[in-house]
Amino acid sequence: MKHPTATLVVSCPDQKGLVAALAQLLYEHGANILQAQQHTEATTHTFCQRIHFETSELAVSRAELEEVLSQECARHRMRWRLTHSDERKRVALFASKFEHCLADLLLRHRLGELPCEISLIVSNHLDLEPVADQFGLPFHVFPITPETKDAQEARELELLDQHAIDLVVLARYMQIVSPEFIAEYPERVINIHHSFLPAFIGARPYHQAYERGVKLIGATAHYATSDLDEGPILAQEVVHCSHRDSVADLVRKGRDVERLALASAVRAHLEDRVVVVGHRSVVF
Amino acid sequence: MKHPTATLVVSCPDQKGLVAALAQLLYEHGANILQAQQHTEATTHTFCQRIHFETSELAVSRAELEEVLSQECARHRMRWRLTHSDERKRVALFASKFEHCLADLLLRHRLGELPCEISLIVSNHLDLEPVADQFGLPFHVFPITPETKDAQEARELELLDQHAIDLVVLARYMQIVSPEFIAEYPERVINIHHSFLPAFIGARPYHQAYERGVKLIGATAHYATSDLDEGPILAQEVVHCSHRDSVADLVRKGRDVERLALASAVRAHLEDRVVVVGHRSVVF
Amino acid sequence: MKHPTATLVVSCPDQKGLVAALAQLLYEHGANILQAQQHTEATTHTFCQRIHFETSELAVSRAELEEVLSQECARHRMRWRLTHSDERKRVALFASKFEHCLADLLLRHRLGELPCEISLIVSNHLDLEPVADQFGLPFHVFPITPETKDAQEARELELLDQHAIDLVVLARYMQIVSPEFIAEYPERVINIHHSFLPAFIGARPYHQAYERGVKLIGATAHYATSDLDEGPILAQEVVHCSHRDSVADLVRKGRDVERLALASAVRAHLEDRVVVVGHRSVVF
Amino acid sequence: MKHPTATLVVSCPDQKGLVAALAQLLYEHGANILQAQQHTEATTHTFCQRIHFETSELAVSRAELEEVLSQECARHRMRWRLTHSDERKRVALFASKFEHCLADLLLRHRLGELPCEISLIVSNHLDLEPVADQFGLPFHVFPITPETKDAQEARELELLDQHAIDLVVLARYMQIVSPEFIAEYPERVINIHHSFLPAFIGARPYHQAYERGVKLIGATAHYATSDLDEGPILAQEVVHCSHRDSVADLVRKGRDVERLALASAVRAHLEDRVVVVGHRSVVF
Repeated sequence: MKHPTATLVVSCPDQKGLVAALAQLLYEHGANILQAQQHTEATTHTFCQRIHFETSELAVSRAELEEVLSQECARHRMRWRLTHSDERKRVALFASKFEHCLADLLLRHRLGELPCEISLIVSNHLDLEPVADQFGLPFHVFPITPETKDAQEARELELLDQHAIDLVVLARYMQIVSPEFIAEYPERVINIHHSFLPAFIGARPYHQAYERGVKLIGATAHYATSDLDEGPILAQEVVHCSHRDSVADLVRKGRDVERLALASAVRAHLEDRVVVVGHRSVVF
Repeated sequence: MKHPTATLVVSCPDQKGLVAALAQLLYEHGANILQAQQHTEATTHTFCQRIHFETSELAVSRAELEEVLSQECARHRMRWRLTHSDERKRVALFASKFEHCLADLLLRHRLGELPCEISLIVSNHLDLEPVADQFGLPFHVFPITPETKDAQEARELELLDQHAIDLVVLARYMQIVSPEFIAEYPERVINIHHSFLPAFIGARPYHQAYERGVKLIGATAHYATSDLDEGPILAQEVVHCSHRDSVADLVRKGRDVERLALASAVRAHLEDRVVVVGHRSVVF
Repeated sequence: MKHPTATLVVSCPDQKGLVAALAQLLYEHGANILQAQQHTEATTHTFCQRIHFETSELAVSRAELEEVLSQECARHRMRWRLTHSDERKRVALFASKFEHCLADLLLRHRLGELPCEISLIVSNHLDLEPVADQFGLPFHVFPITPETKDAQEARELELLDQHAIDLVVLARYMQIVSPEFIAEYPERVINIHHSFLPAFIGARPYHQAYERGVKLIGATAHYATSDLDEGPILAQEVVHCSHRDSVADLVRKGRDVERLALASAVRAHLEDRVVVVGHRSVVF
Repeated sequence: MKHPTATLVVSCPDQKGLVAALAQLLYEHGANILQAQQHTEATTHTFCQRIHFETSELAVSRAELEEVLSQECARHRMRWRLTHSDERKRVALFASKFEHCLADLLLRHRLGELPCEISLIVSNHLDLEPVADQFGLPFHVFPITPETKDAQEARELELLDQHAIDLVVLARYMQIVSPEFIAEYPERVINIHHSFLPAFIGARPYHQAYERGVKLIGATAHYATSDLDEGPILAQEVVHCSHRDSVADLVRKGRDVERLALASAVRAHLEDRVVVVGHRSVVF
């Protein structure tokens, strides 16, 4: 893609003429639509649209486009955001002791799969510092105990703020992030839960899966909300298993689906393909 | 769905303003867009769009809407079609001796999964007449030999014409349909090929798959074209297999993926979610 | 398969020499082993084995083979069963108002996928009588109310006993079968649960799945036990879904995975590939 | 696994008593069988068996066990191999310029998924030396031109010989390895082909897949033989795709299935779960 592109994502109560209004506005200002998806949530009558367009022949500045969009969206009481492909999101990866999700995201980033800048890595343990070093990334350790948790989270938030972080990815962070932390990054914290939610909520899901004798295990990537494991689901993957799989085998197979689900969710977020409606997500 | 809905499907060389033009036209005539998808084929710069909309508050008659659409689409050199949910497509199912695809489609139709009218069943053998009887459908037998093929196809086409058939589904018909026949129903003949095309083109694909020792087998549903097995692919499904699977097991597993792929393709066609661009298909 | 084959399935506390003892015994009596799988459950140290063998050159009668096996298995405190491919299991299908699982099993049986005799169909409603008629099978209706449930189940059990039923398949029966009923057919009642257990236990799982916004839905086939939905899992299938799927779409997609999971479980049972260890199943 | 275990893999023309003979021999020498699978290839009447057993109470030395097995297997004209879990296979990874398969295997090895020693990395280019460095592994470069190919392969073979390499993994090596090279490592060179073989044999399979408009893409891991892409298949994976996927997207999705298929094949080989029969593989 030589020229930068832009993406407009909107949602609002459904009414007639919304598609026409936005398409007309973009056309008048010189945008060429490359891809557009529109969906209306049947139960809440919520209109959702994503428009991906070329900006090489835009007749106005980005600021001016923002301004006219702001006025139009206000008229329809739309939630909206406009992003540009050359203003890459800044991402912080949080990990703990398991490296597979972290290493997978770093590798994908190096391969060009994730359109973002990975600014830094945060952990509550020192174990993964070598991985950060391998990829030449700053590694920040915030050891956490019940007593220090509030203070450490405050320091983490300060760090994120200094780096103007857009997205936090909990890549098997193994720590419950406080509602206060989440509130600072609404729909901007992605977590990977190592099971097929809503099955096996809580601790040691692979042990639970083994005990239950399931024939499939899965992983779920979702936006973190104050309700643990209850945020809008972004991606889910599964893999078949059998009686031959020990708990260790389930953990191994689980790593594969965790990596796939998390990478898929992070990509969807980075490409601005997600609209949250209530506690469900539309992933265009 | 209480009120009828309509679907507009268009494709044309890409240019700016197409989304706006169509959305504006529909809005002005009282349509409420429920779902819209737009895609531009990168290599051919072909604009493709599907718009699904409510017609309960349409300000004009269907004929008038057709007329204004016709003029607008002509201006942009668009291929287009407009369909209405209460004008159900009329389908002819062609089968030979294997009943699984035929019975599956009939069952799905009875369950309400396929929005169409199944008008009749055509076969070159008598074997499946009882299946037609079970579902209370007319069964027409056209035995085919090299000598009679042309004449029989002519009679089949006459029958399809009499019943104003919109779509022909080759549900394991096991006969090569002539280019002349296909030409009468362009992009309106769906075939199920019992392999993961383009692997195992031609006869006895499950035997070929067994000999090759593959670990997956598949099925491909596609529009039939004059080039055997080369038409635009609509749906593909696969299933894992192993050394424990005999040819008979592959055939059995294959039946499941054939049924799934064919039903998926037929649904996509009936819901007007397919746009053909060259020899590829866009399935919205 | 020209000659009949036999299958021996055993389980017992693990000890050395079990494989050798059984293999030697079978060899001495003229059996030729076609396929054998052996697995030891790590947590319970339970030895499980399935041996599938040719009997065309058996040096003894079936009764004599049973006798020597009986003695050998007693020595090792084995649970065991010996079945013969020409003594087909007799199956009763229970259904309610939904026909897809019932029709699917009947179709598969007609296609030769299920090595059994389907003796009869039981329902608590009249709706599916035409399906039974289509396949020429006896249809027995036992309307059930809270008051009549015990008496009706007693009549059902009597009917099953008269027909020497080996396996009961609850093909979306939509009635909770009593623990007393289950106790008469231990590990011989297969149920299909219309969700990916243990998620969405209980009523209306597709509505629950829609509300939760999952990206995958599934189905679980399991042996019924007195604990609802807690019996040993035999097969699970899933399919991807998205925001575009309404509850009706989830129900439709769910039908496909229900059919696949149930058919897979029934086949495994009929081919004597299942060993239950505690509340987990080994499916060879 | 505290105590070392051993694995016996055999294949030979089928005859009665083979299972009993091997089980009896192992039992007499103190082995405790943990897992056993036996399969008879129907078309070639080839008996295949894998026996995984505990050796902690073995009554003889490994050399003595080898000796008695050697005699027994000779009697039945068996191909056989006996491996011990504490004698880890030595692996050489060959790569070119793409790092995803190489990095994936190295990460899995670090996570403990691959029971082997990775001795060295070979490449025809310098590009991936940093990856080798990250994992602290020797990196050997053998630039290859048509003129130097024979000599360079000879040097590679010498290197592999010096390091007593058991398995060569072509992790997207992008060079055709000569039949002479393969002949030195029969059934010990694993290749990943970036398509669902036998579709898209040859160059640029993702471009071919895009042109053909397929709805699934795949990857195939197989033993390399002198016939390019025709060796016994070990593992295949697929992923759905759509009109929205550009060639670049197919390449990206392809990387995921390549990694999964290759890792699965390498694990199967390392765990001695593969038996080759003709040009098919049995993967227990």
